[in-house]
Amino acid sequence: MKLESPHRRYNILTGDWILVSPHRTKRPWQGKSEKPVQFLKVPYDEDCYLCPTNTRASGNVNPDYSEPFAFNNDFAALIDLEDTTVFKDGFLMAQSESGICRVVCFAANHSLTLPLMEASDIERVILLWQKEYRELGSKKEVNHVQIFENKGAMMGCSNPHPHGQIWAQNSIPEEVAKKTERQKSYFENKGVSLLGDYIKQELQEKERVVYENDHFVAIVPYWAVWPYETMIVPKRHVSRITDFTDEEVADYALVIKVLTTKYDNIFKTSFPYSSGIHQAPTDGQEHPEWHLHMSFYPPLLRSATVKKFMVGYELFANPQRDISAEQAAQTIREQSDHHYLIDV
Amino acid sequence: MKLESPHRRYNILTGDWILVSPHRTKRPWQGKSEKPVQFLKVPYDEDCYLCPTNTRASGNVNPDYSEPFAFNNDFAALIDLEDTTVFKDGFLMAQSESGICRVVCFAANHSLTLPLMEASDIERVILLWQKEYRELGSKKEVNHVQIFENKGAMMGCSNPHPHGQIWAQNSIPEEVAKKTERQKSYFENKGVSLLGDYIKQELQEKERVVYENDHFVAIVPYWAVWPYETMIVPKRHVSRITDFTDEEVADYALVIKVLTTKYDNIFKTSFPYSSGIHQAPTDGQEHPEWHLHMSFYPPLLRSATVKKFMVGYELFANPQRDISAEQAAQTIREQSDHHYLIDV
Ligand SMILES: O=P(O)(O)O[C@H]1O[C@H](CO)[C@@H](O)[C@H](O)[C@H]1O
Ligand SMILES: O=P(O)(O)O[C@H]1O[C@H](CO)[C@@H](O)[C@H](O)[C@H]1O
Repeated sequence: MKLESPHRRYNILTGDWILVSPHRTKRPWQGKSEKPVQFLKVPYDEDCYLCPTNTRASGNVNPDYSEPFAFNNDFAALIDLEDTTVFKDGFLMAQSESGICRVVCFAANHSLTLPLMEASDIERVILLWQKEYRELGSKKEVNHVQIFENKGAMMGCSNPHPHGQIWAQNSIPEEVAKKTERQKSYFENKGVSLLGDYIKQELQEKERVVYENDHFVAIVPYWAVWPYETMIVPKRHVSRITDFTDEEVADYALVIKVLTTKYDNIFKTSFPYSSGIHQAPTDGQEHPEWHLHMSFYPPLLRSATVKKFMVGYELFANPQRDISAEQAAQTIREQSDHHYLIDV
Repeated sequence: MKLESPHRRYNILTGDWILVSPHRTKRPWQGKSEKPVQFLKVPYDEDCYLCPTNTRASGNVNPDYSEPFAFNNDFAALIDLEDTTVFKDGFLMAQSESGICRVVCFAANHSLTLPLMEASDIERVILLWQKEYRELGSKKEVNHVQIFENKGAMMGCSNPHPHGQIWAQNSIPEEVAKKTERQKSYFENKGVSLLGDYIKQELQEKERVVYENDHFVAIVPYWAVWPYETMIVPKRHVSRITDFTDEEVADYALVIKVLTTKYDNIFKTSFPYSSGIHQAPTDGQEHPEWHLHMSFYPPLLRSATVKKFMVGYELFANPQRDISAEQAAQTIREQSDHHYLIDV
């Protein structure tokens, strides 16, 4: 099969197919261009509702924090309901959803982003994610904890202060349910994890690997959808963020720093993305099939201002991409590990 | 169940659940605002590669068309391949994809949009869609024909000239496969169409109906994801666009005109959306289970410049919406059928 010709690839984690049209970036672009992202200069902004000591829209005042800081979202999409009810009336089916939405400030300094932070400070963010996953997950009504970051206005982020979110909820989200199913059937058959075996193949072929250290590998998955989509996978079969050893936490921080640095270096811009950690649900079951991984979905395609639109065909038919996973991996791999804005 | 509280709703066509958080629009928005869309004034633009008589990037010259006009996309994501091959190497699975991408100009006049066109001119577009579906679908290698429109720069449209696209391909896209499965199992059980029975309930309850005429109904589906998502459904169980009677074509044109007019009236802007027609695959089977429908996915949420972002949580977990389907339906229904820019 010629990889330059249109083809479909299979996502072994979700069971979905995606369309790849590598020849298509040749088309001229007269469409929308986005505002280039500016790095911020001020470490404190009095109008930012995430900076230390500031008052939020709810009237709550942020502490004068210096470590990563988490609090309940003032405008949460999920709230804690006493009971779960089910509704059915003919073709209308619904059920109430209970949950907690948290905001996680990565740093006190308003002008930072993950790639501009020290690896040791990213470690502190990981320790807070662990604490949140443990505490939220231990609540009886929380069966899933979704840790994620929307970075950049292009990805719907409404505040540039370095932060992510956590939505913890009663039901298992669709994406997670799909990934549980495939990992489970593989684990029941083979006794080892699907992703563990998959990254062995990727580490051997090297073509889609963008970075690795002792405990982690960052790859462009074979079935990537977003132009520069990547996945960070621990080499050891770890099901949840709380299972990492100290060395793994340190290496995890490092791979996040290097990968996001490479991203910024591609188009010399603060690279927007949504990232998310997929791991074992907190539904009281053991989930030995789960192999934790963190995915990055960045929208930029051609430049700092021209993104990929997931629209008509992508919404009604299949996700579609315009560069191959291998081309994207090569571009990311070739970027320096050193951020273009940080002096040597 | 309280409909103001967070809840999940079930999509009977795809089997997916979506999260609804109707209380959430109260949150302040400091995030991205989009450029408001301007209506165009000039009926002909010499730089537009879709206007009659102009030369396209490929060097091809458009005829001096006055009826809706279709041609092969010069930068097609799908191309006609002689044979289909399958690739498998461990965890890497792919297959080549063959197809044809078409561009459909709705009108010669550069400044028009569907709501600004006469219903009789929209009828001509439908007749062209029928012709394209018939011709593309009759090719041995084409098993599915996706007709869609990306309207507005916000939805990735790279040219404001009124146009849509058709991607015809060998394999059945994911969304269509899911909808085939559910409709089939219902049809095999009951001998009637799932959507037919569903709209009977909606027509009785009226709460989510935004417009109806003799042969069509436009509703906000109970499981809508996009803020003002709607679905146009023929009242008769019709599987493919080529099965419509002349009266149905006329009523179909009318419902498209009224619905897109109401959309423009909501925020007094040229309302962006992706729309798509889902209908029976062209794989040589009869598909009596299929009930054609046309969906509109518009991104605007709060105003002409603030859209809903389908990002972190939505990508990693579940689609999520901030206003209920019932609130959206009421807003759309209450809009005039008369476009705010057209003089009486
Ligand atoms: O074909 P166009 O109009 O250049 O491109 C637009 O529609 C396509 C089909 O939905 C998408 O793949 C592109 O991302 C979008 O910009
Ligand atoms: O919670 P925020 O940052 O206000 O909102 C952002 O992230 C949410 C979770 O992905 C999305 O639902 C919103 O559309 C997006 O703007």
